Amino acid sequence: MNIIRIFGLRVRHYRKLKSLSQEELADLCDLHRTYIGSVERGERNITLLNAEKIAQSLGEPLISFFIEDGERDGK
Amino acid sequence: MNIIRIFGLRVRHYRKLKSLSQEELADLCDLHRTYIGSVERGERNITLLNAEKIAQSLGEPLISFFIEDGERDGK
Repeated sequence: MNIIRIFGLRVRHYRKLKSLSQEELADLCDLHRTYIGSVERGERNITLLNAEKIAQSLGEPLISFFIEDGERDGK
Repeated sequence: MNIIRIFGLRVRHYRKLKSLSQEELADLCDLHRTYIGSVERGERNITLLNAEKIAQSLGEPLISFFIEDGERDGK
């Protein structure tokens, strides 16, 4: 699976785990809700700094977002 | 340490491990030598797709490029 798709699914997974809406996560990251939506859908070739910003806002190490086999969402 | 700095140091580490010049790595990735140089110096907020391209060209999983404590270069 494409890396930006894997990353997006992990963002969605951790966001839901923390019971945050896309808007709440966007506020925490200082990014826009539609940006978070496109990241989660794997539509955005995000930069490392924004990837790290999202990871930090979700309280998870960045490497957790690149591991495909832990995937549990996508429904 | 900043994530783009960590990434750059890991690229340099693995490139030297494989005895590749910046130009040779650039050719493998279909990127420019000066681009690889700026990535290694931590000057470039690279995208996930280019990060993955470099990782694949070096034959290492992407997550290996985000782990700071394995760092052995930087001289």
